[in-house]
Amino acid sequence: MKLYYSPGACSVAIHVILEEIGRPFELQLVALKDQAQNTPEFRAINPKGKVPVLVRDNGAVLTELTAIAFYLGSTFSEAGLWPADVEAQADTLSFVDYIAGTVHPQGFTRQFRASRFTPNPADEAKVIEQGKALAAEYLETIDKTWKGDTWVMPQGYSIADAALFFVEYWAVKRVGMPVPPRIEAHLKAMLGRPAVQRALAASGMAA
Amino acid sequence: MKLYYSPGACSVAIHVILEEIGRPFELQLVALKDQAQNTPEFRAINPKGKVPVLVRDNGAVLTELTAIAFYLGSTFSEAGLWPADVEAQADTLSFVDYIAGTVHPQGFTRQFRASRFTPNPADEAKVIEQGKALAAEYLETIDKTWKGDTWVMPQGYSIADAALFFVEYWAVKRVGMPVPPRIEAHLKAMLGRPAVQRALAASGMAA
Ligand SMILES: N[C@@H](CCC(=O)N[C@@H](CS)C(=O)NCC(=O)O)C(=O)O
Ligand SMILES: N[C@@H](CCC(=O)N[C@@H](CS)C(=O)NCC(=O)O)C(=O)O
Repeated sequence: MKLYYSPGACSVAIHVILEEIGRPFELQLVALKDQAQNTPEFRAINPKGKVPVLVRDNGAVLTELTAIAFYLGSTFSEAGLWPADVEAQADTLSFVDYIAGTVHPQGFTRQFRASRFTPNPADEAKVIEQGKALAAEYLETIDKTWKGDTWVMPQGYSIADAALFFVEYWAVKRVGMPVPPRIEAHLKAMLGRPAVQRALAASGMAA
Repeated sequence: MKLYYSPGACSVAIHVILEEIGRPFELQLVALKDQAQNTPEFRAINPKGKVPVLVRDNGAVLTELTAIAFYLGSTFSEAGLWPADVEAQADTLSFVDYIAGTVHPQGFTRQFRASRFTPNPADEAKVIEQGKALAAEYLETIDKTWKGDTWVMPQGYSIADAALFFVEYWAVKRVGMPVPPRIEAHLKAMLGRPAVQRALAASGMAA
């Protein structure tokens, strides 16, 4: 398997899942800071111009964080990151999807790429404020609806924890926003996992 | 099962899937035009204030279109909407997720709720234009990466078709945007399905 990633990007969630699974994989850098997602070479692999991208062992490309997390959890079920019961599977997927489809693009992308959210450069500071407010609201919703203990899901550590990890890491380490205590504790627990430490070290991210 | 929906909203994708499956379900109206998604009653069911919401037979609430589509496809696999092979499952989920997590919120929500994308009312027309341009670009990406024949996935009709349906319906019937021929043909094929006709009729949407 091969993971296309960028340091600090949401692809770190997939990197963590791969480290947890412990099967061999290759890393391929797509430096977003250099616009490498927009080169013809990368667009030929993922026409959407986004990381993460997973190349599976059969050579087929897979995009979308939620689908990649599902695929890895479900294919390598011996790693215990994906529950056996379909009710719990659906709840786990719902959580991952809320992170990838709402918290990330509506909360954090507004903060990191404000120019995509307003035609007017003078309004970018307001877009960033709105992103911060939305991110805070989403993290509060996650806190209030928490069903697990240390980990997100009641069945224990799963792909949902890797998904929460990248946004809580952004919140605390990149933006410096206050987060609910449960999420702060979750980040700390994640940072204590060897798989997470390996993923961060491999992409030069602070532990 | 019970589906919380609003006429014309993305919840129609789940409505179609339920009609295809053919098991009994109840419909519960959440009229977005009356802000019913923001009442304390509905927020107690879905704190995120969004449709679709599925109440499962065990009483548990499930949110996020991608997760609900996965759940229904996978639980009622005899309906043939979810492939048996994990590689095809991941591709199907990736497609659904692209619709729910990118095409809908970045392309169409910009057009339908422009005020959420700019602090400045004078810029709303520009936000709508940007939404149109993004939606066109996303639909082109879908067209160029199409792997199926009439239906989206090579294995045949699936939850991916129900997902594409709601955005192509918006594009053609609500916004009047030009769409690639393959997508126009897909919409026509969808509108020919009795399950789709029943879902549209039940929520007073034009067939
Ligand atoms: N819907 C995609 C979104 C992924 C995404 O937004 N990735 C960001 C990095 S965090 C990216 O590649 N951005 C490059 C760009 O937008 O130009 C997913 O869930 O995988
Ligand atoms: N991430 C959610 C988004 C669903 C969504 O945006 N639903 C819209 C209707 S198309 C909604 O309920 N909007 C109400 C609002 O935003 O106030 C999903 O995929 O299910």
